[in-house]
Amino acid sequence: MTALPTSATATALEDLAAALGAKVSTDPAVRASRGHDRSHLPWEPPSAVVRCTSTGDVSTALAICHRHGVPAVPIAAGTGLEGGANSTADAICLDLSGLDNILRIGADDLDATVQAGVMKSALNAALAGHGLTFPVGPGVDASVGGMASTGASGTTAVRYGTMKENVLGLTVVLADGTVIKTGGRARKSAAGYDLTHLFVGAEGTLGVLTEVTLRVYGIPEATGVAICSFPTLEACTAVVLATLTSGVPISRVELLDDVTVDAVNRYSGLGLPVLPTLIFEFEGSPSAVAEQSGTVRGLAARHGGTGWDYADDPERIGRIWRARHDALPSYAALVPGSSTWSTDVCVPISRLAECITLTKADTDAHGVLAPIVGHVGDGNFHLAFVLPPGDEGALAAAAAINGRLVDRALSMGGTSTGEHGIGLGKTASLAKEHASALPAMAAIKHALDPRGILNPGKVLAG
Amino acid sequence: MTALPTSATATALEDLAAALGAKVSTDPAVRASRGHDRSHLPWEPPSAVVRCTSTGDVSTALAICHRHGVPAVPIAAGTGLEGGANSTADAICLDLSGLDNILRIGADDLDATVQAGVMKSALNAALAGHGLTFPVGPGVDASVGGMASTGASGTTAVRYGTMKENVLGLTVVLADGTVIKTGGRARKSAAGYDLTHLFVGAEGTLGVLTEVTLRVYGIPEATGVAICSFPTLEACTAVVLATLTSGVPISRVELLDDVTVDAVNRYSGLGLPVLPTLIFEFEGSPSAVAEQSGTVRGLAARHGGTGWDYADDPERIGRIWRARHDALPSYAALVPGSSTWSTDVCVPISRLAECITLTKADTDAHGVLAPIVGHVGDGNFHLAFVLPPGDEGALAAAAAINGRLVDRALSMGGTSTGEHGIGLGKTASLAKEHASALPAMAAIKHALDPRGILNPGKVLAG
Repeated sequence: MTALPTSATATALEDLAAALGAKVSTDPAVRASRGHDRSHLPWEPPSAVVRCTSTGDVSTALAICHRHGVPAVPIAAGTGLEGGANSTADAICLDLSGLDNILRIGADDLDATVQAGVMKSALNAALAGHGLTFPVGPGVDASVGGMASTGASGTTAVRYGTMKENVLGLTVVLADGTVIKTGGRARKSAAGYDLTHLFVGAEGTLGVLTEVTLRVYGIPEATGVAICSFPTLEACTAVVLATLTSGVPISRVELLDDVTVDAVNRYSGLGLPVLPTLIFEFEGSPSAVAEQSGTVRGLAARHGGTGWDYADDPERIGRIWRARHDALPSYAALVPGSSTWSTDVCVPISRLAECITLTKADTDAHGVLAPIVGHVGDGNFHLAFVLPPGDEGALAAAAAINGRLVDRALSMGGTSTGEHGIGLGKTASLAKEHASALPAMAAIKHALDPRGILNPGKVLAG
Repeated sequence: MTALPTSATATALEDLAAALGAKVSTDPAVRASRGHDRSHLPWEPPSAVVRCTSTGDVSTALAICHRHGVPAVPIAAGTGLEGGANSTADAICLDLSGLDNILRIGADDLDATVQAGVMKSALNAALAGHGLTFPVGPGVDASVGGMASTGASGTTAVRYGTMKENVLGLTVVLADGTVIKTGGRARKSAAGYDLTHLFVGAEGTLGVLTEVTLRVYGIPEATGVAICSFPTLEACTAVVLATLTSGVPISRVELLDDVTVDAVNRYSGLGLPVLPTLIFEFEGSPSAVAEQSGTVRGLAARHGGTGWDYADDPERIGRIWRARHDALPSYAALVPGSSTWSTDVCVPISRLAECITLTKADTDAHGVLAPIVGHVGDGNFHLAFVLPPGDEGALAAAAAINGRLVDRALSMGGTSTGEHGIGLGKTASLAKEHASALPAMAAIKHALDPRGILNPGKVLAG
């Protein structure tokens, strides 16, 4: 991370300025603001920021970067957590946040096409007028292109899948500026190699996404939410497995560990029992929601669940979800001035309780505060390290715990990241997880980006 | 398709015999039986068949083929419809039907791992003992590896997705014999390039699948099925769209055109009105099934549906589904001695009625008998050309109609194949559909199979 602007970068900057004029900025404030995501990982201001507003702009910029062998780092909302959008000083940053047009809403086909910089909130505002919604994505508002690039998911994956299951097609600019389309509007296709899925989750290292066609969904007629405490983590995963096997089409099931419950109690005055806690969400017709919640209430009781609290009106639903939505700010409030570092792994559901228990023992043993929330229907959970200001020891301990967490997840047949991606932060984890497949990944990278200009150092380390 | 055994092939055969002994067969009957799928497309007996029973066998065979630059063509059940498993005389056939072990059923995680040659029926027989099912796949029994290789789907894709959404991970043998794993048992992963999806649907041209880990599902508590006639194709697609938008989690919705209804009436004595007809399937708790079917019955009535016939007992359910299951044999019975050629496309649902209407006009204008059934919830339909014996004119007319069908689907934003794959039959269609992306596909092929030995001529023509 000590790259300096090279003469190639300087020449590329001249070409970029000639081709794209005022869209190219070397203003230090702009470069600093667009040089990094929300992680703690290293970054440097890029040598310039190209404020792209069209696929053509991205194509022009990449053709120039390719010609001169200059790194290009795409960014949109910058909400990533593993440094996937972090720049180096020799790089050109492609700012995609100006690609913010909703191009088409296909109410008759339950699909929509948007430019990559469109925010999830903007998409959902536009869809709402058609009675539609796009339920996939992280808690934080993010760009659709960023979500596709990282293979994001969030709380609704248990019902709606991740971005992988919801991107129907992409417009992608390849390393040399060539523009390709990877899919049309058919709901399914068996035509040729599935490039859509190859670019989803590739974090801008194989091409830059500029347009995304998504599946969208009808807004459910009714919604119900329940919160329930359990004696153990094992009881939580048992009730989730029973729910999934029963065929109840649950739309969310979120786990809060005892530390999280304690934190949100303090932060939001909730008064919840300090126990492993699940929040369930049900969708459908009013009677279907009532039946689903009744079934799950019975399953919860059979596994020692207590304090079942159910709501089907928006105000009380919002109050229940507050325990989950306030988790991150409540963590920061535990230690004045602290920052949080959120990591994630995903394991088979049958190993989830064990994985969390061992991880909590590890954080306790090292005196690191690290509450846990999880998308337990997928076996995916987040450990949020709460780092006191300037405490290098805590950061080092967190890094070591994170490494052991990844090893533990892999030893259980899981993955080093369920939804945050590899970025800069987990390239070593990827090399462990996919030791056998890494040469094939590298071969594909080299085939599509022979000069190695696309977001170098991300996903595959150097 | 005039390749002859070369000296390279002869040398490879010697090495194969030395390494794999009696697993290598040059028996003419074996070579002929394993040299082709169920399509009308050209094939030749391969020079030998290697009856693989392990990943190691496949690795050994591919390493030898790679060293000598000899084509390797994998096959398992041989139920493909686009020539994807058809051999040439210079090729070594890798018969994977002996890879027939169910390796693991994860009832606690709703997943299973099987060898590639395991038949869907065998998997479901084993799953049933755990109260589980794998609902994805074509009407015909097929191997799990073949289904994954072609990106197969079938009638349940509207609820459960295709093989793309249901393969969690693969063991793949690369061109040079290297064995890789593309995923573990996590329900989702954002770790690195999505090689799982790259190999799913690649039809053995990028690597040979030997083990597949799948999502599996609880057997639904109750099932209900309804059949209903509609005045027009437009009414059919309107009611399907209304069903999808309403959020009814329909598990199947199949369209039979008037010609199909007429054919199954004759073949099975069903006495159905000769009109566009939909068959709906509902799953869930008994009350959920009752509510879903009531909702859809109302939607059907609003769109002119008549003769709604509903069943929730297995015997009557079977009788309703007979109209769909007997479609293919009923077509063959229309013309004594005829063969059928089934093609498929997939379009946005809003264009489906128009696409089918124009296609029926085309078949009528050319005097070709070609009934239609469709997985209408996906916008996917099948045209089954009924070809009188020895009628070269009908075959040529069908080929021309098929070409226009693909062009029509593409012009509507659809795809040249929703589930049959490209194989040999649709390489020109793929080149049209993905003109912009084809060089990227070719670059990936070259990166993973530099000598071009893996199922050559399939997916990408030459």
